[in-house]
Amino acid sequence: MSLAVVGSIAFDAVRTPFGERKRMLGGSAVHFSLAASFFGEVRVVGPVGDDFGDEEYAVLHARGVNTDDIERVPGGETFFWRGHYDFDLNTAHTDDTQLGVFGDFDPKLSEASREAEMLFLANIQPDLQRQVREQCTGARLAGLDSMNFWIETARESLLKTVAGVDIIFMNDAELRMLTQEPNLVRATRKVMERGPRAVVAKQGEYGAALFTADGFFALPAFPLETVNDPTGAGDSFAGGFLGYLASQGESASGDDATLRRAMTYGSVLASFNVEEFGTERVQRLTREEIEDRYAALRQMTLLDEIPAAR
Amino acid sequence: MSLAVVGSIAFDAVRTPFGERKRMLGGSAVHFSLAASFFGEVRVVGPVGDDFGDEEYAVLHARGVNTDDIERVPGGETFFWRGHYDFDLNTAHTDDTQLGVFGDFDPKLSEASREAEMLFLANIQPDLQRQVREQCTGARLAGLDSMNFWIETARESLLKTVAGVDIIFMNDAELRMLTQEPNLVRATRKVMERGPRAVVAKQGEYGAALFTADGFFALPAFPLETVNDPTGAGDSFAGGFLGYLASQGESASGDDATLRRAMTYGSVLASFNVEEFGTERVQRLTREEIEDRYAALRQMTLLDEIPAAR
Repeated sequence: MSLAVVGSIAFDAVRTPFGERKRMLGGSAVHFSLAASFFGEVRVVGPVGDDFGDEEYAVLHARGVNTDDIERVPGGETFFWRGHYDFDLNTAHTDDTQLGVFGDFDPKLSEASREAEMLFLANIQPDLQRQVREQCTGARLAGLDSMNFWIETARESLLKTVAGVDIIFMNDAELRMLTQEPNLVRATRKVMERGPRAVVAKQGEYGAALFTADGFFALPAFPLETVNDPTGAGDSFAGGFLGYLASQGESASGDDATLRRAMTYGSVLASFNVEEFGTERVQRLTREEIEDRYAALRQMTLLDEIPAAR
Repeated sequence: MSLAVVGSIAFDAVRTPFGERKRMLGGSAVHFSLAASFFGEVRVVGPVGDDFGDEEYAVLHARGVNTDDIERVPGGETFFWRGHYDFDLNTAHTDDTQLGVFGDFDPKLSEASREAEMLFLANIQPDLQRQVREQCTGARLAGLDSMNFWIETARESLLKTVAGVDIIFMNDAELRMLTQEPNLVRATRKVMERGPRAVVAKQGEYGAALFTADGFFALPAFPLETVNDPTGAGDSFAGGFLGYLASQGESASGDDATLRRAMTYGSVLASFNVEEFGTERVQRLTREEIEDRYAALRQMTLLDEIPAAR
């Protein structure tokens, strides 16, 4: 299945206890598309400014990402985010956000993107997400990410957008906040009652859990001794997940075993993403390394049946 | 292997958003022994007061728990804990603690307890834990639980005690605090460098992870729509874990597959424990229910190998 993503393309400044980068390529659509690119072609939709140059395009092109729908706005500036993390790497602290060209973003998708069979709506304003979803008449499966900021400031719009997609990717605190339900199992059911057929609860260093109408699957995060920068982990997860799912075709996309493998590829891509700053690690990642870590993660969760003789 | 536990035997008063109990049987040794009792006999060591009566003994005896080493102190009062939980059920708030007979507890174990082949040192003062460990010359495998309070007030003693046991059961925040190492993988390795050959990192609603010299295994918590009272979850986990391990004999106790099954039984027992208040659910639990939930949890974590054809 063809795959498109709409989200931010950005420059990030990030400081963690383990280092700092003043200006590096980032943004949800970038992290998503690099992760998804290991499984097939992905089209990126989003605006950039004049400051987005050959060097940045080259990172995407090196991974075969289709950038035809990156809209370059003359005289504009690329979205900029500055943030830091303390030792609790689960929490990002935003120090500065400059929307730049993203402030006036009015998504007009090319025919190729509108006909993409799979669509990811990364974490942007929910009205924009819905607008894109409505344009993408070819999409047979749409995923969505969001965050606490939109739940607090655009709740009704977000709920409408949720109703129009198939798979939700949010962290568990956000799922609780969105549904006002403290129990995660009930929270995910409330989300599914609105339309989506699956909910992925992202749980940071604890991994992720997949809820469907009649199923539950959970996977730990790959244990890492070195986590340098968690920025983009969630988008890398979604990229690995949907990238793999797209590669399996539509018939497999509702299959429980396929979804579990998608969860695992998501987790693997996220684990590589956080090992270094920004896109540094994923840029030189290989499919072989991905498969090795998939096998390792499978081994780490493998459980025997109970022996017949107790 | 024969199994003994040293820890608190208590009356608890607990309030959660879902209900309240003014006075019920509790304590780490009680929760541990009830959970372990499904796999074989377990001896409880600890003091109680005059107020600990036939009704309380009956709960333990109904599950075949050996109470010969419960020391009844004439004129004394049983340990009392009062606490509450808000919607974040991962955090217990202590409102009152009355040590009672536990204040003067000077463990003198019977010969049978000293010769137990497996020993669990539940969360009590680390000097006392070490004193018990030293008396138990027959123990070939000892587990230990502790908490932030002892890390803050008796750190050096706790580190000495840790050095004398084989498996540590602590939550991940406590492992980080004990080792002053924010990365969990490194924290568990620092613990193992002091002696223990395995560390179980308890992660509340996220499950638990097992670290050994060359292995890692993680398991989600069984997803529950109803959690009424998390008190005793950690001790029920340790009881299921060590109870199962004891039932498999010494030769199996270092085997990776056996440890993974022990993790799963621990998780299953903890999940039943939290469904109702205190010991209510576990009192009427059956081995068949345990096996059913084991099978369900296995199903929820099952991951295919990657298909040969991608």
